[in-house]
Amino acid sequence: MEVTRTLASFVVEHRAADLPDRVRHETARSFLNWVGCAIGASRHETVERALAALAQFSGPPQASVLGRHERLDIMLAALMNGITSHTFDCDDTHLKTVIHPSGPVASALLALAERMPVRGEEFVHAFVLGVEVECRIGNAIYPPHYDIGWHITSTAGVFGAAAAAGRLLKLTEQQMVWALGIAATQSSGLREMFGTMTKPFHPGNAARNGLLAALLAQRDFTSSNQALEAKRGFGHVLSTQFKAEAVTDKLGQDWEILLNTYKPYACGIVIHPTIDGCIQLRNAHALKAEDIESIALKVHPLVLELTGKKAPQAGLEGKFSIYHSAAVAVIHGAAGEAEYGDAVVRDPNVIALRDRVSAAADPRIHEDQAGITIRLKNATTVEKFVEHAIGSIDRPMSDADLEAKFRGFAHGILSPAETDRVIALCWDVGRLADVAEVARATVPGS
Amino acid sequence: MEVTRTLASFVVEHRAADLPDRVRHETARSFLNWVGCAIGASRHETVERALAALAQFSGPPQASVLGRHERLDIMLAALMNGITSHTFDCDDTHLKTVIHPSGPVASALLALAERMPVRGEEFVHAFVLGVEVECRIGNAIYPPHYDIGWHITSTAGVFGAAAAAGRLLKLTEQQMVWALGIAATQSSGLREMFGTMTKPFHPGNAARNGLLAALLAQRDFTSSNQALEAKRGFGHVLSTQFKAEAVTDKLGQDWEILLNTYKPYACGIVIHPTIDGCIQLRNAHALKAEDIESIALKVHPLVLELTGKKAPQAGLEGKFSIYHSAAVAVIHGAAGEAEYGDAVVRDPNVIALRDRVSAAADPRIHEDQAGITIRLKNATTVEKFVEHAIGSIDRPMSDADLEAKFRGFAHGILSPAETDRVIALCWDVGRLADVAEVARATVPGS
Repeated sequence: MEVTRTLASFVVEHRAADLPDRVRHETARSFLNWVGCAIGASRHETVERALAALAQFSGPPQASVLGRHERLDIMLAALMNGITSHTFDCDDTHLKTVIHPSGPVASALLALAERMPVRGEEFVHAFVLGVEVECRIGNAIYPPHYDIGWHITSTAGVFGAAAAAGRLLKLTEQQMVWALGIAATQSSGLREMFGTMTKPFHPGNAARNGLLAALLAQRDFTSSNQALEAKRGFGHVLSTQFKAEAVTDKLGQDWEILLNTYKPYACGIVIHPTIDGCIQLRNAHALKAEDIESIALKVHPLVLELTGKKAPQAGLEGKFSIYHSAAVAVIHGAAGEAEYGDAVVRDPNVIALRDRVSAAADPRIHEDQAGITIRLKNATTVEKFVEHAIGSIDRPMSDADLEAKFRGFAHGILSPAETDRVIALCWDVGRLADVAEVARATVPGS
Repeated sequence: MEVTRTLASFVVEHRAADLPDRVRHETARSFLNWVGCAIGASRHETVERALAALAQFSGPPQASVLGRHERLDIMLAALMNGITSHTFDCDDTHLKTVIHPSGPVASALLALAERMPVRGEEFVHAFVLGVEVECRIGNAIYPPHYDIGWHITSTAGVFGAAAAAGRLLKLTEQQMVWALGIAATQSSGLREMFGTMTKPFHPGNAARNGLLAALLAQRDFTSSNQALEAKRGFGHVLSTQFKAEAVTDKLGQDWEILLNTYKPYACGIVIHPTIDGCIQLRNAHALKAEDIESIALKVHPLVLELTGKKAPQAGLEGKFSIYHSAAVAVIHGAAGEAEYGDAVVRDPNVIALRDRVSAAADPRIHEDQAGITIRLKNATTVEKFVEHAIGSIDRPMSDADLEAKFRGFAHGILSPAETDRVIALCWDVGRLADVAEVARATVPGS
């Protein structure tokens, strides 16, 4: 079975007209979410340090760093946008493989779209195909590949970036085979890097290297013809299992992007059911902190293990505190980056409510669930049991939720009018005459 | 045991004054050989295609592509010089690990030396340390890592490039730890790519990515502190065995560069004993093709398996013909790129002698050996049994041999005077006031 060639042929031959509408719409959702994440983290220290190191080597000012004024060559822009979009760890998740699909693909594509005219329809099509390639390769090797210690967003992402960029570059089938080969030989990224700036470097690096693979292949830079399936190819060298049929079965019928999910809150996914329930109760009962006597949580045991920090001192620590998270959910009705800033973590009102939160582990509760009981000073009690957290595949974020998340990220970086414009462009991405417009619209004051 | 930190500390703390003289001299030999290989392949199609794809994204003209007129940013120059230096597969070999040590290290270092003033002593010191890092990491994982399918020149080379560049950048110990971490997470390169243009891409990519790692670390871009030894770090993820002590034992006492070897001929190493013996007989007896009745070879069985092509039609096929190789060794007294060009492979005189060569496999003969019996038309016979081929660790190429090899590569690209100048600069590399002079001297007409 020629796995690599079958996949390459699909990417080269598939017709945009055959994309289902819901696939197009999910792509717009993924894109909107990705752009928001990239803008949101665009001033982060991780980004500043990378730019300080690398901008001096940039080629011509070909492409934007989203949310910033720098323009870099497209390779470096792809790297930077991949970094920013994963810095808050709030980008999309293909839960079947824990791949964050948009980072590698969109970073490569949008940079390329600033270098050559790309219509929205082509862009969306290449985006879908890139996600399909990386997630199918992920399906073929997950979980053993991830368990060994590979950061699958990076290792599979480089193929997605190469395929998507290669489609925009109109590679032939043979060139696409080579592009996947050059991607395979650059596939890398260790889970050991989690918790450091090198984690968000991974999707950026996958984008940069995937783009490089497509550009080399475009000039007939030769590579293996069996990069995925060969004895010494990607599947066997980087995994103990390679399910070839997961790459090739039902190509063009099943679409992996329909399994994409989006994180509503700027913290680890295990806290999400609690935050979700607290916000629902707050909104349903117009709760105010000063009226609350206590908040009692029932959660999956892993929650306390990972996020049991009672008295966080700084913003980042707040992300590891179920207590802080419940308090801001009730007080602010949100749990975005702002609610995990130093100022909010040290706010006396937040601390006062946080100290009235208790949490008990209950092994009968699933990871996607939480029970919340809020006792008011007037002796009444309100309760909520969350079956599926918002943002899960069973209860996806609505388009309005995604917009609200985007606004949270853009706040303080873009003006409200600029924010509105970028959101509108993202929803409309499939119909734009020139997708570069989106990238340029993210530059403050543009 | 803190393997990564121990190694980082060594690279940061070691003093140039403590380098033995023979280590310095071996470095000059490695450097001369590397520069020659890079110049020699500088017009190859592999190089033309890579430049056609990537030059448009280059930053400021900071560094040279050896043997050519283009100037690129240092990241891209490192990539290109890594590619050229491995295109003819004639660069150096650390036989213990089959790493080609100079490609990743020298490509990163020389590019950096064109961006900032670097004295010869610093350059040689960083070169030695880079080779030490990549070969020690190689020793820790070879052979299982290579057997799995990793191209060890690429996977280990990225560490060598990072360490060497990091030393020139005067990284602190913590920054060097991070540089090794950022290198680890980019470590990649599959043996599946052998036989394609993507093979020489590997050392270039290792150089580029190692340089990137050092530059990011210089700006405190954080990474793991245990990239080599952690459970999900390089050693355990990319190999089934990780001998930590091979990285740390006798640091500063044993020097891996002393185990470096150089290929005298532009073909697979299995043909080298035959060529060696044929050249020796030719020179000892002033042999001429027209006086020869037959040439009978006794070789290791692998030789016929790999290079048994009786009637090669084009230059590249000649490299896989023991018959052609023996013929040119006798006629030309050499087996460089020129002797594997299309014209020589199709030369009627070469073909006539090639057809009088026979070869028999003999399992008692080692890979490093060959028996040659040449029967002359005057009924006399001359014989030679080669115990160790020239270029092996037991019979290293002399400095004069290395110069002759260099001249063969530079022929047609540099003038004789330019060639003399580059050779002199390479021998003198440890005493140069500014090593960038070497790079600039390789540009034709400079």
